[in-house]
Amino acid sequence: MHTDIEICRQTPLVPINDVATRAGFLSDEVQSQGAYKAKISLDALSRLNANQSGKLVVVTAITPTPLGEGKTVTTIGLAQGLAKLERSVMACIRQPSMGPVFGVKGGAAGGGYSQVAPMEELNLHLTGDIHAVTVAHNLASAAIDARIYHEQREGYDAFEARSGMKALRIDIERVVWKRVMDHNDRALRMVTVGRNAPNKTINGIERQDGFDISAASELMAILALASNLADLRERIGRIVLAYDLDGNPLTTQDFKVAGAMTVTMKDAIEPTLMQTLEGVPTLIHAGPFANIAHGNSSIIADNLATKLAEFTITEGGFGSDMGFEKACNIKAQASGKAPDCAVVVATLRGLKANSGLYDLRPGQAIPDQLYQPDHRALLEGFTNLKWHINNVRKYGVPAVVAINRFPQDSEQELQQLAQWVRELGDDVDVAISDAFAKGGEGALELAQKVVTQCQTAHPFTPLYTSNMKLEQKLLTLAEVGYGAASITLSDAAKAQLKLFNEQGFGNLAVCMAKTPLSITTDSAIKGAPTGFDVPIQELKLCAGAGFIYALCGNVMTMPGLPDKPAFMELDIDANGDIIGLA
Amino acid sequence: MHTDIEICRQTPLVPINDVATRAGFLSDEVQSQGAYKAKISLDALSRLNANQSGKLVVVTAITPTPLGEGKTVTTIGLAQGLAKLERSVMACIRQPSMGPVFGVKGGAAGGGYSQVAPMEELNLHLTGDIHAVTVAHNLASAAIDARIYHEQREGYDAFEARSGMKALRIDIERVVWKRVMDHNDRALRMVTVGRNAPNKTINGIERQDGFDISAASELMAILALASNLADLRERIGRIVLAYDLDGNPLTTQDFKVAGAMTVTMKDAIEPTLMQTLEGVPTLIHAGPFANIAHGNSSIIADNLATKLAEFTITEGGFGSDMGFEKACNIKAQASGKAPDCAVVVATLRGLKANSGLYDLRPGQAIPDQLYQPDHRALLEGFTNLKWHINNVRKYGVPAVVAINRFPQDSEQELQQLAQWVRELGDDVDVAISDAFAKGGEGALELAQKVVTQCQTAHPFTPLYTSNMKLEQKLLTLAEVGYGAASITLSDAAKAQLKLFNEQGFGNLAVCMAKTPLSITTDSAIKGAPTGFDVPIQELKLCAGAGFIYALCGNVMTMPGLPDKPAFMELDIDANGDIIGLA
Repeated sequence: MHTDIEICRQTPLVPINDVATRAGFLSDEVQSQGAYKAKISLDALSRLNANQSGKLVVVTAITPTPLGEGKTVTTIGLAQGLAKLERSVMACIRQPSMGPVFGVKGGAAGGGYSQVAPMEELNLHLTGDIHAVTVAHNLASAAIDARIYHEQREGYDAFEARSGMKALRIDIERVVWKRVMDHNDRALRMVTVGRNAPNKTINGIERQDGFDISAASELMAILALASNLADLRERIGRIVLAYDLDGNPLTTQDFKVAGAMTVTMKDAIEPTLMQTLEGVPTLIHAGPFANIAHGNSSIIADNLATKLAEFTITEGGFGSDMGFEKACNIKAQASGKAPDCAVVVATLRGLKANSGLYDLRPGQAIPDQLYQPDHRALLEGFTNLKWHINNVRKYGVPAVVAINRFPQDSEQELQQLAQWVRELGDDVDVAISDAFAKGGEGALELAQKVVTQCQTAHPFTPLYTSNMKLEQKLLTLAEVGYGAASITLSDAAKAQLKLFNEQGFGNLAVCMAKTPLSITTDSAIKGAPTGFDVPIQELKLCAGAGFIYALCGNVMTMPGLPDKPAFMELDIDANGDIIGLA
Repeated sequence: MHTDIEICRQTPLVPINDVATRAGFLSDEVQSQGAYKAKISLDALSRLNANQSGKLVVVTAITPTPLGEGKTVTTIGLAQGLAKLERSVMACIRQPSMGPVFGVKGGAAGGGYSQVAPMEELNLHLTGDIHAVTVAHNLASAAIDARIYHEQREGYDAFEARSGMKALRIDIERVVWKRVMDHNDRALRMVTVGRNAPNKTINGIERQDGFDISAASELMAILALASNLADLRERIGRIVLAYDLDGNPLTTQDFKVAGAMTVTMKDAIEPTLMQTLEGVPTLIHAGPFANIAHGNSSIIADNLATKLAEFTITEGGFGSDMGFEKACNIKAQASGKAPDCAVVVATLRGLKANSGLYDLRPGQAIPDQLYQPDHRALLEGFTNLKWHINNVRKYGVPAVVAINRFPQDSEQELQQLAQWVRELGDDVDVAISDAFAKGGEGALELAQKVVTQCQTAHPFTPLYTSNMKLEQKLLTLAEVGYGAASITLSDAAKAQLKLFNEQGFGNLAVCMAKTPLSITTDSAIKGAPTGFDVPIQELKLCAGAGFIYALCGNVMTMPGLPDKPAFMELDIDANGDIIGLA
């Protein structure tokens, strides 16, 4: 078997302008960025507005394990399978962060014969959208510290009298906008900025700050949720950066930086068109986290794809309790376009890992036993798959389970698992997917079943609506969304809830920031637990994205590098080609 | 008169592929990035290697003033003038930083009818090269802090035994690689990284650090000096990031990060092709500082342009004591291609400002008197122009003075100034340039005189060669380069000199980091002073770039934002077009 990058390099690609034409874009809507990438103008959105929308398929998964379930492989493979069935189809995926590419993760382009190509372009700078997010985000940070410096150095009254601008009287203990960088850099999690040499003040006012990875920026969530450039501008203008000394929120508008931030993201709002190894048009756009944000690619990309293609395949981050929940409750409510079908990706080894019978750690070798037939572990793990199938049904969305096959898998166990799924009901189907090894050819059965399930009429039922009270939204997500028995708000969270209600943010959506490794908030609890409590430590406002996120435990927003990071393998060879990219 | 951006938007542009073909690039050497930008493959370098080189013209200036002398306007105007004379010509300029675009400076695309277009693309992300420098630079920073963390947490012996890697034993007081960001952000000049919550250690080891603006990264200097991708890789591998506890230098190779940094800059090494408002092909590549680095656009861009065009027009940063000196002593010695002619840009108001008779500050209104005829001020200021003309001649390079005309200028003073220049000798000529108001048509006389001066045979004589001792290079630059009487090394600089010699860096070039606002190291001293001392406070090693820079006074490597930054004017209008970009 060849490596992903070898397969990618050996596969002849179609010129991107041809991919675009085939997808239905007009030539003046396409700005090619080299031979195999193109920016798609939002003019296409207006042109296509009256078209009927095709079917939207969201790929989700069982509770993730350190092994990787192959969600992107399945997304790309399914799109290729549909193309082989001569259905018009596009895929929409998120842009991967560069930080993790240099860290532990390797690429995020799918794998085997189901990849987005060229994979090195997807995994590195692509067309610069993440860089634009980083620049726009840090421009606001520079604006905050500059304003603190000028106001405090001069004194508020003197500042107002001289500059003709209102003093913002920023509370330096309540600057809620951190800086960002697209790297795994733990040393930046907590920093002191504005330090000065002794008896100097030229570097500004010292305060505590920190960096998140760029994908964790509220701007990334906004990019994924905005419907057009004007909406991007409005959303950016609503971002709360800090609070003044009286506790009033200060927005980007108050700092007069919202326009410049939008200008910086003017190209980023256009999705990037690429192709799969089998030439299926694929839109890459935005890459928000699936805990502190909603973890799905952009509404703009979906809107373009569903107006042009009979089927649009997209994916949500982590398991169905995370990305899929947010695809329904946050994204679909913002876009007005509900999923027509969900694909739940499962693997034999992933289900066994979810049995709780194995102790697995990221980066460690996979125990051989996981590949051996193990009826007990599989049956235990199946409770987790069943939970995710039922979770999808909760929203009125039919499910197709894709069992992503690995070469070591037992045929008997695969069939056993498929049988268990079939017994769950008519609105559930199952297919074994060989998309990794065989591309679209390996996903024909899956594609056929998705086509069938998409024809099932169903009323889409999100768990909450915006007019419900914030606390009710939290409770509903915990109880109905996760099957918890209760929620417990910390004192801090209670105070924040009160404040957000008073400040007029009660109509926002709620985004749960919890571990993806369990349906509960405790990563050690596997399977399909019930009766648990959801402790909510803190609430954070993302007024531009349009949600409040609830921190249920520690969520890492700036990863670190291991002692042998993936970057150590990366280099160029004598031909100038990249080597060492997994 | 229209604003720069209005002129730019009203001017029809040529599709970039046509610009490229006209310039002589083959279609498979051109990767268009949208309609008006293209990356040029370095394959063109090999193809063109045997071609004869055209003439290289370096545009420099009098000692800069806060008024702006119009060096880029003259560079672009001259290129357009040569095109109007039916000479084949290309311009090569640096990519502007985004930080200053949001700060005080506005754009850097030239102005009036002598601009690189589209100016908003040049001034914002362009094709992402600065972002690539930022990412590659900060990857090394993350690598340093991760290695410090893993080695110190585990202990050196345990780290070696477990990981199989040699412990680097990094001296955290001697990490010489700061982080970078492309913003004007004074609060990042001095930061503490690796801070932890009480009794925690998960964020690494606390140490003092700081951020420079990305253009100040050694990687930016390397990008401008590298001759191809393999040379980029080698230069990156020579960068010294830190010292170990025994005082030995630790390079990117020791951290195994040089390959990944090169991969990150793989696209950045390709120059970006754009065009002037009159369709002259223009290569944009790299943007190193002209004090702590050598302040000229890339050798690769020059090599491509001089192999294809009869005339290549490029510019060096600041006055001829800065960018032009470094074009000769650092860039030309690295490239093997000497300037064939220098254009020295002067303005009436700039010379008067250089008289020392006015007190000018950046950001303040220009006093009306500067536009009034003032024989005494002009004559005083002329000593500065004469100094720069003679400085250029020192290298055996003929000079053409371009007097950049402003609407308020007195015709009589313009003629007077031109006459004074003509009296200086045969290897000097002069032309009044109307490039701002009239484009190439306004630079015909200048273009004609440049053509004539380029025909003058002359032996190129840089001030020093690499085999001279470091101290001798410093002395030569001060005495011969500036006309100083002496240099004074601080104790720290003496110790560094000794160390660099011992560690085998004695053959590197020397890059003077001093104020551009005076020929001396004191920005208050105007005109053409002599007999002064050059105090050298500190020496810094840029082993990858291939020079040691000498700090003569404070050089700001991270600007700050004023209280009313340029970003406050930036926004998008109802059509989605950018407004407020100067």
